[in-house]
Amino acid sequence: MNNPVKIFRRGALAVFALHVALNLHAEGPYGNRDNPDPHDEGEGRYPIPYHLPKVEEISAVMERVRANLDRAMVTAVVDGKTGVVITDLTTFNPAAVASRGDQNGFPVLAYATGVTHAGMLLAGEVTGDARYQAFVARHMDFLGKTIPYFRAQADKLGVAQNSYRPLFATASLDDSGAMCAALIKARLAGASPDLLPSIQHWAEYIRQKEFRLADGTLARHRPQPLSLWADDAYMCIPALAQMGKLTGDRAWFDEAAKQTVQFAEHLFNPTTGLYMHGKHLNQPLVAEFYWGRANGWVIMAQAELLDVLPADHPAREKILAIYRAHVRALTQLQSGAGLWHQLLDKPDSYLESSCTAMFVFAIARGINRGWISPVTYGAVAQAGWLALAQQVNEAGQVGASCVGTTLASDSVYYYNRPTSAHHGHAYGPVLLAGAEMIRLYRNQGKLFDIQLRNRTYHFVPLAK
Amino acid sequence: MNNPVKIFRRGALAVFALHVALNLHAEGPYGNRDNPDPHDEGEGRYPIPYHLPKVEEISAVMERVRANLDRAMVTAVVDGKTGVVITDLTTFNPAAVASRGDQNGFPVLAYATGVTHAGMLLAGEVTGDARYQAFVARHMDFLGKTIPYFRAQADKLGVAQNSYRPLFATASLDDSGAMCAALIKARLAGASPDLLPSIQHWAEYIRQKEFRLADGTLARHRPQPLSLWADDAYMCIPALAQMGKLTGDRAWFDEAAKQTVQFAEHLFNPTTGLYMHGKHLNQPLVAEFYWGRANGWVIMAQAELLDVLPADHPAREKILAIYRAHVRALTQLQSGAGLWHQLLDKPDSYLESSCTAMFVFAIARGINRGWISPVTYGAVAQAGWLALAQQVNEAGQVGASCVGTTLASDSVYYYNRPTSAHHGHAYGPVLLAGAEMIRLYRNQGKLFDIQLRNRTYHFVPLAK
Amino acid sequence: MNNPVKIFRRGALAVFALHVALNLHAEGPYGNRDNPDPHDEGEGRYPIPYHLPKVEEISAVMERVRANLDRAMVTAVVDGKTGVVITDLTTFNPAAVASRGDQNGFPVLAYATGVTHAGMLLAGEVTGDARYQAFVARHMDFLGKTIPYFRAQADKLGVAQNSYRPLFATASLDDSGAMCAALIKARLAGASPDLLPSIQHWAEYIRQKEFRLADGTLARHRPQPLSLWADDAYMCIPALAQMGKLTGDRAWFDEAAKQTVQFAEHLFNPTTGLYMHGKHLNQPLVAEFYWGRANGWVIMAQAELLDVLPADHPAREKILAIYRAHVRALTQLQSGAGLWHQLLDKPDSYLESSCTAMFVFAIARGINRGWISPVTYGAVAQAGWLALAQQVNEAGQVGASCVGTTLASDSVYYYNRPTSAHHGHAYGPVLLAGAEMIRLYRNQGKLFDIQLRNRTYHFVPLAK
Repeated sequence: MNNPVKIFRRGALAVFALHVALNLHAEGPYGNRDNPDPHDEGEGRYPIPYHLPKVEEISAVMERVRANLDRAMVTAVVDGKTGVVITDLTTFNPAAVASRGDQNGFPVLAYATGVTHAGMLLAGEVTGDARYQAFVARHMDFLGKTIPYFRAQADKLGVAQNSYRPLFATASLDDSGAMCAALIKARLAGASPDLLPSIQHWAEYIRQKEFRLADGTLARHRPQPLSLWADDAYMCIPALAQMGKLTGDRAWFDEAAKQTVQFAEHLFNPTTGLYMHGKHLNQPLVAEFYWGRANGWVIMAQAELLDVLPADHPAREKILAIYRAHVRALTQLQSGAGLWHQLLDKPDSYLESSCTAMFVFAIARGINRGWISPVTYGAVAQAGWLALAQQVNEAGQVGASCVGTTLASDSVYYYNRPTSAHHGHAYGPVLLAGAEMIRLYRNQGKLFDIQLRNRTYHFVPLAK
Repeated sequence: MNNPVKIFRRGALAVFALHVALNLHAEGPYGNRDNPDPHDEGEGRYPIPYHLPKVEEISAVMERVRANLDRAMVTAVVDGKTGVVITDLTTFNPAAVASRGDQNGFPVLAYATGVTHAGMLLAGEVTGDARYQAFVARHMDFLGKTIPYFRAQADKLGVAQNSYRPLFATASLDDSGAMCAALIKARLAGASPDLLPSIQHWAEYIRQKEFRLADGTLARHRPQPLSLWADDAYMCIPALAQMGKLTGDRAWFDEAAKQTVQFAEHLFNPTTGLYMHGKHLNQPLVAEFYWGRANGWVIMAQAELLDVLPADHPAREKILAIYRAHVRALTQLQSGAGLWHQLLDKPDSYLESSCTAMFVFAIARGINRGWISPVTYGAVAQAGWLALAQQVNEAGQVGASCVGTTLASDSVYYYNRPTSAHHGHAYGPVLLAGAEMIRLYRNQGKLFDIQLRNRTYHFVPLAK
Repeated sequence: MNNPVKIFRRGALAVFALHVALNLHAEGPYGNRDNPDPHDEGEGRYPIPYHLPKVEEISAVMERVRANLDRAMVTAVVDGKTGVVITDLTTFNPAAVASRGDQNGFPVLAYATGVTHAGMLLAGEVTGDARYQAFVARHMDFLGKTIPYFRAQADKLGVAQNSYRPLFATASLDDSGAMCAALIKARLAGASPDLLPSIQHWAEYIRQKEFRLADGTLARHRPQPLSLWADDAYMCIPALAQMGKLTGDRAWFDEAAKQTVQFAEHLFNPTTGLYMHGKHLNQPLVAEFYWGRANGWVIMAQAELLDVLPADHPAREKILAIYRAHVRALTQLQSGAGLWHQLLDKPDSYLESSCTAMFVFAIARGINRGWISPVTYGAVAQAGWLALAQQVNEAGQVGASCVGTTLASDSVYYYNRPTSAHHGHAYGPVLLAGAEMIRLYRNQGKLFDIQLRNRTYHFVPLAK
């Protein structure tokens, strides 16, 4: 007779999904180093360090990530078969490809690479450490040198297998949006040669060429003839927002705002406060998979847009309301280990780092910019950062990060996506999160005070 | 000091309820055999096989079940004390009883037996394997021969302990509905002697004699003076529906539709999208236990009714809406192991096979009949079938199937119902599910295409 | 590669949070001793004893608690440095403190002590065992003797470090409400010398001096300048209710009712049916942590008020509706082990005894008083009591009881609060729960019958 109680007899105990994906480098449990009384019986026993982070500790985590990516993300042209570096960019070589870096996990034009550049630039801006911007500059210089090279190769061999197909035969927002935004940010930061033609090409693709629903929402013909992906919010809105900043033309902001509002209308469930991963509009039925990173893409897109959207833009208040409703729901779902779940509403799904980083970034930025109050959300961001930092090992790799995941139709697929440190999804977000957390702690004493009272942290208004 | 963190220190890890009831025959984890690249790091690691089933694999699972039931479900009169078979049906024998089969788990007139016959008939219809119908014919012939025998015994000894009390002194829908529907189906399939008197007796009981609420909803005086059980939806609606089909009298369909709509009004919670197991109407308060099999009984009843209800019946659209709302909610609750939970909304309750089978049946039938789109639900049914198939061992026994469960008033009871392969609740539903899944895959290329893209299955409209 | 499935391979099994905090004294699983068939395969296999409790078993559990507290809660003046008992209360001694009992866990004026006295008085009233009231009388006599002593000490040394600061320099509802209610109950039970001045002082503080919101709801300036704590419902409403009973002045009842209704308006979420632990009103955002004991404080306050509020009070029906909505939601969240979770809506948070005791008390009282029907909630209370009783060890200590917990702002804090048998939060509630459960079983045959049918308990109306 099958009986769950057999398991009971075996005495198998669990701290549930807590262990399932936590790749903790120390065993835990942890106390709170800020508690002067080491014998305080009322102190919590935590699965992650629970204390007030120091700015230098945050930047140390970010530095490990930077060092890892500086090693893993290669700017070189190589022979696709032998791996040998090709230095002569004057000669056509049919075997030439752009290196995809360590374990081929880091293509130079991947959307995750675009997020990484955004993270590097913000990290550099906040820490003042020139190596972050140097990383970006290395990549931008490389693009500047190699775009003509691979263009010539494409002219000879066709574009389908070309390393820069996402630029030469742009076919999706995944191909364009994140890197477009990154290129603009690099340009504005003075960390790039002139890549304006590529910027304009990608911006034009997003603005004019990509498929849209009747109401203008950017969409895809995959996997269904008419599918809407939450991921696409990030793959268009930051680029549109940065184009507004670059050109000063408000029409870009109008388009970014419109996509933001419409993605929410289509994919946000006001009852749950979460975004479904996607929806297929070729039939009337809906299955809502609240995949963590899908929600991360959306909230990161909003955090990017709100940062540059003019204060008097007519959609600003609506977008703030959309953002706040999402933060409110996400707060209710943060696990007892500080991370969020792969499926946000499923406590038996594993704890995932990339979405956690995206949420910490967006919540910390919201506090820093005054979109949400530190009173309600400061400790949420802090606990999330502490959990995230635990996922960055000594080699600067990020654990518990879900690999690339498509818009699927069953729970079994989502629950069982593997994790990998060799895919780029978590790296940019970790840098973004760390940067905004450093800003947060620099705002201590300026925007709020942080008090440790009764063994937990209270972000309180400044004493008058 | 008690402390959950002690468990943390012991390093007990869990993949949660995943293991609790999964009686996996292989250890797992599984990749996807349809992925040509065995080293694909982006491939999922699954607790169940995750691939496109082949029709012959589905029918192999069903055949194991059939073979098991053919052995376990005995059509014989035996001496109740000695177990010796009684062949002489002309002589009164006070000790004679109808065999209850293997481990006394399969009474010939049990409601679960009625579901088994429904499954056998559908399996035979879909596979063309004559042994399924032969199983049903064996039972119907046995009833034909033994009803007079046990009637005579009851006339002498009274009916209370008689093997055929559910027929001779029908006192509930459990006694009547499932077997009535089965007898009609067997008759219409040509797999039965003339059992019309029994059919009419049971149909009459349901139509005229069983207790009803003031609004006509079939109800019970147990456990409270006024109780409504979701299970009763299955114990009346299929019989009423089959009577409509048998007689052509629409009044039967009207009654079936009315019960369907009213059971939903009383027991369906539109906020959760689920049916509570039951409700006691002798007082105003409600406790909603979303027991898996209760929801299974309801959705199976609707799947049966919609299959025969005339296309122009005035209640058809309403019933379709009721069915679709339920499927939508169930989809949100399918576990990462493809099964559903004993308490559907409680991820810490064990994974249960009988309700899973009922859901897979009803969802697959809905796709096959066009009630719901394969786009949204095809992969849900597929994952559910793969998980269910894992629960059928080599001997054709179904694991993780909750035993008989009453309408109770506390969580502890429901969470801790044992499972058993010696009770019949899952067998019929597994055959029903398998049959509709075979139909589903035969509809590939006719109603939809199935594409494996990005490591998951997409049920897409046919390419034009 | 991190992968949750690795855990799968290690074969770690779980009965989830079931084990995480269950400090079961026997290993389990349990059958039901009331089932005459020990081989009944359909009987549940439970993590707690599942049966009909006998009154003498309930009082035996309560007696173990009483004996433990009689030992652990000391009424003595001691030298704060040496621990030596001071018997001479005529001489000033700067080192004198009121003993805080075993492990300093039981200060005589702590709010938990007030709940303990409430529990002792009810236990004595229901069991007739004079030792319960003697415990209270011992404490009240001690207060009578030592209040002047410590007052004199405070006059000399100041009040900040004085053992009776909560009385002499009352600064919060925690300082006043629970003990005020206890003193009144002790007075009315004849178990106290005249402590009316202290009663009046504390009642005056609650009525006139404590900080309130603009709408009059009692609130705090901690941790934020404007914070509302669900705990405060218990720290004011029972005292206000008892003042109404003591004085006959309905204004006290009006105030108690007003606080009850307003606490619900501010902190009850009608969608979830639960009270958030608190809310900070110095900004518009909310994070809702459904901490078990916060909900326990609220429901205990209502159970106390409804017990004395005049039948014709205009707010009575509204308060009953508030109470019933809460009971309904709590019922949906009782775990499969009979306890409730530390965070009520988080099945991956540990199982907690103090909130369980508070819920069992309030639900059982509701049945006994006719506020809710035994039909829906009798078995819920019964299962909760059986689970709670398992948490009381032979030494009368209560396991799985969360230590003092502040109004915090992150999940990690709440999930990881330690438990301790050396803090008083669960003791009073266990006595209160046991007392109402004894009353419940004495009501068997008077208000309802209890039937064991189909392996579970049905609380049914009396047969006419």
